[in-house]
Amino acid sequence: MVIGGIEAGGTKMVCAVGDEAGNLSDRMTVLTGTPEDTLPRMIRYFKEKKVEALGIGCFGPLDLDRKSPGYGSITSTPKPGWAGCEILKVFREALSVPVGLDTDVNGAVLGEVLLGAAKDCDTAVYLTIGTGAGVGVYCNGALLHGLVHPEAGHLLIGRKSGDSFPGVCPFHENCLEGLASGPALEKRWGRPAAELFAREEVWELEAYYLAQAVSNYILAYSPQKVILWGGVMHQTQLFGLVRAKVRELLNGYVRHPALEEELDGYIVPPGLGDNAGIIGAIQLGRLAAERMNG
Amino acid sequence: MVIGGIEAGGTKMVCAVGDEAGNLSDRMTVLTGTPEDTLPRMIRYFKEKKVEALGIGCFGPLDLDRKSPGYGSITSTPKPGWAGCEILKVFREALSVPVGLDTDVNGAVLGEVLLGAAKDCDTAVYLTIGTGAGVGVYCNGALLHGLVHPEAGHLLIGRKSGDSFPGVCPFHENCLEGLASGPALEKRWGRPAAELFAREEVWELEAYYLAQAVSNYILAYSPQKVILWGGVMHQTQLFGLVRAKVRELLNGYVRHPALEEELDGYIVPPGLGDNAGIIGAIQLGRLAAERMNG
Repeated sequence: MVIGGIEAGGTKMVCAVGDEAGNLSDRMTVLTGTPEDTLPRMIRYFKEKKVEALGIGCFGPLDLDRKSPGYGSITSTPKPGWAGCEILKVFREALSVPVGLDTDVNGAVLGEVLLGAAKDCDTAVYLTIGTGAGVGVYCNGALLHGLVHPEAGHLLIGRKSGDSFPGVCPFHENCLEGLASGPALEKRWGRPAAELFAREEVWELEAYYLAQAVSNYILAYSPQKVILWGGVMHQTQLFGLVRAKVRELLNGYVRHPALEEELDGYIVPPGLGDNAGIIGAIQLGRLAAERMNG
Repeated sequence: MVIGGIEAGGTKMVCAVGDEAGNLSDRMTVLTGTPEDTLPRMIRYFKEKKVEALGIGCFGPLDLDRKSPGYGSITSTPKPGWAGCEILKVFREALSVPVGLDTDVNGAVLGEVLLGAAKDCDTAVYLTIGTGAGVGVYCNGALLHGLVHPEAGHLLIGRKSGDSFPGVCPFHENCLEGLASGPALEKRWGRPAAELFAREEVWELEAYYLAQAVSNYILAYSPQKVILWGGVMHQTQLFGLVRAKVRELLNGYVRHPALEEELDGYIVPPGLGDNAGIIGAIQLGRLAAERMNG
């Protein structure tokens, strides 16, 4: 099957074509302008590629309630022009193929559960920490939506005593995105994360905040795998630091080999690497096609 | 159908008999001694009542992994005699009927989803805060286990600045149970919760900690209903305080009527009141019988 996928972000839209098994045969990137600029270019691309289904992993918040009249639209984003965009309907009507939509991070966790590091898990978590922080959740064998969809990138965490940095989240004084995203790192230390590699105190503090969030994901979801990625986690020295602090914070309370001698294989980067999001989006398209075929 | 239920706690075991619709026809309570003392009395009770199925909502941690050789046993509890107790097997062999086992809080959330305040929800959370703190989670239409089972009563939270109370959790410096359970209240303020009713500062601080945890449950699970109960929440003035602080902490980030004008109907006490746990346990028995009958 020829399946299209979109990893729709605030700065760029990654479009790709692939198959059920996770192979990618083509890829194109469009900068995110207004919907009027951006959508027709993507539609043209997928028409040319003759896709039989399309999956979209999209920045949120999204209306994913199938019973809602606004199902399939972007809701309250500050990105100019995109609030209220009926992205699912636009592509469904333009392409006349089954279209699946979910959050970008739910797409990524789906890719990892089906084809990556969380294969065979019925419950897994994917945290991306970069420009923002977002969490995709696969729970009891399905992507989690509930009332809206998880927003666990904004989990409230405790400040390190003495840390008076105001944070970068306009909503929350003490959330993961506000204290530990890429922009937070840059604002706190005065230069981009990539230039701070050698400064131990930077990564100690970063790991402290990440580990609080990860510990809470473990306590809340009891995942069989925790996947961390995004621009900040490209500083891969963070993996070891986060694992050590998670162990310290949980302090042996949850007893399972995954949290003890197998911790290195439990908190991991995505098996699909930087392709988790786009391969996951293609899987959203595959699932939409399967739903349509009963 | 005549179904037995056990709400198995560290201090007492509530045993009851009821039907599929949530009606209770009999109830008996045994103080929790050693397994040798306690189990035979419960077995005798359910034999006399001629139950056709049994459900157990049990203190944990439990092994709920159906593929594990230890499935159905209590694992690392400090309660004398109970660590390693194969509670599921004991009752199944003694009664020769289908037996379902889950955590006490998962039992309670099941009761609420099927017959209480969370009816028709596919995702809901039940927090009990009393002697300890425990969270039952129903996610995507099933009780959540994942790797072990959620332990979100120990969610790590941020301290109110200036709060130097050491907490009562032997594992975590800053977790919900440690800072806000009944024993924490009593140790912090020098007398039991029930005697502190008139002291505003007690409930302000309590609501601050509870609201952090509840906000994080909302961000993490995106539940359609949040149910709060347990000894501490019998101080029902807490509901209003917790709702107000959740609204303040989330600060409009998650947009949904449930979190805005409908908040009073979103963060609620259990529809089944103090019977949520035992009625939920009976539902665990019903589900076990249904699984057995295909």
